[in-house]
Amino acid sequence: MRQNYKIIVEYDGSNYSGWQIQKNTSETIQQKLEKALEVINKDKVMVTGAGRTDAGVHAAGQTANFFLDVDIPANKVPLALNSELPDDIICKKAEKVNADFHSRYNARGKKYRYRILNSNFNSVFVRNFVYNVHKKLDLKLMQRAAKIFEGSHDFAALCAAGSSVESTVRNIYSLELYAVDNGEIWIDVIGNGFLYNMIRILAGTLIETGLKKRALPELKNILQSCDRNNAGFTAPAQGLTLMEVFYD
Amino acid sequence: MRQNYKIIVEYDGSNYSGWQIQKNTSETIQQKLEKALEVINKDKVMVTGAGRTDAGVHAAGQTANFFLDVDIPANKVPLALNSELPDDIICKKAEKVNADFHSRYNARGKKYRYRILNSNFNSVFVRNFVYNVHKKLDLKLMQRAAKIFEGSHDFAALCAAGSSVESTVRNIYSLELYAVDNGEIWIDVIGNGFLYNMIRILAGTLIETGLKKRALPELKNILQSCDRNNAGFTAPAQGLTLMEVFYD
Repeated sequence: MRQNYKIIVEYDGSNYSGWQIQKNTSETIQQKLEKALEVINKDKVMVTGAGRTDAGVHAAGQTANFFLDVDIPANKVPLALNSELPDDIICKKAEKVNADFHSRYNARGKKYRYRILNSNFNSVFVRNFVYNVHKKLDLKLMQRAAKIFEGSHDFAALCAAGSSVESTVRNIYSLELYAVDNGEIWIDVIGNGFLYNMIRILAGTLIETGLKKRALPELKNILQSCDRNNAGFTAPAQGLTLMEVFYD
Repeated sequence: MRQNYKIIVEYDGSNYSGWQIQKNTSETIQQKLEKALEVINKDKVMVTGAGRTDAGVHAAGQTANFFLDVDIPANKVPLALNSELPDDIICKKAEKVNADFHSRYNARGKKYRYRILNSNFNSVFVRNFVYNVHKKLDLKLMQRAAKIFEGSHDFAALCAAGSSVESTVRNIYSLELYAVDNGEIWIDVIGNGFLYNMIRILAGTLIETGLKKRALPELKNILQSCDRNNAGFTAPAQGLTLMEVFYD
């Protein structure tokens, strides 16, 4: 009998073309996981991820599931997997789940963090995981701006052009900004789902607000316009990390 | 007239054979800095570093000095240098100093940090800057052990074999251990100077104490024996960072 496993995966997305397997030869996280699992399972394994992170985006808590033909105790799965994975992908946890568990369809929400290093100079210690903004950001202004985007809205203005989804309405449960010791500003977003590039455009719009290139009243108009051209720039992928996926 | 400049440099030592220029072709931090400065100075520049960090060791506050033939305002030096440096070496600060300033001879002390990630699994976000210890460490025991090494001692037992120095007496002004949020334990050492591999052997000995492979009374005997064979293992270079160099 095939067993369904749910895993939590952390990865440094710097050297990958994102989560999902591509038709060309570029390397992806999903591909690395499937290759490692094939060694363990001695047969092909298909891995389903909760979120299809883009090229360069990281994860501290990506969730995925897959079926194995071999019955391995759940607590042995991370060790077995990590011994086959490169050191920029780490399985942190595994559990056996019912056959009907699907990491993407069953996800009730996700938490992402956008990390800004607001400093004259970048830092070698976090350079792959932050977006370095040199000019001083007004954090209080950004925190007030964040309140405008919380809740259920049509986020079409914050969706990359060319993406086709049935509805562009999404619910941001929480959008918080923090100052961290080393000069970082964290944008923590929890929501039921996100449009293509939505968080990076949101981060870009908040950064432009913090740089006083955008005033608060303008932000409401941006949302209402449903026009991508009115929102801010798409902040770089390297600053974004998928922190957690929520299930019932 | 040639101007002496003092700079603060941060680097990720992962991809370098340490600070000092080698006779073979391996890349070093000093070499990268001299190459960058040669572009700015339009002539060869010799860089003197306060500490000759080993292969794989990092720095948050390495201090160096060099003479330029061109007179550049101090605040322009970091920008000019960083535009020529790879992204794993960052000049954070520069100032003009008297011609007799020598970053190594004038150094009064140094602070190093050894970062341990005490966790079942490594973390992709800090993996290049920590040593991952899987088994649970007894931090309180390590903190008590640290007190034994503080002060002025003959540290011959904590010095890599084969190094030739006049005296193996050094003064550790402060040796503190902290638990950090993400599961890291930091060993912060401030001293007037350190023998070859001394901090890494000290870290290894403290780790073995935290794993209860060494009892506290044994540690005094190790110091007194002046015999490298009695001390702990040499903890990996990647966990070590030169934090700061002190001057009068």
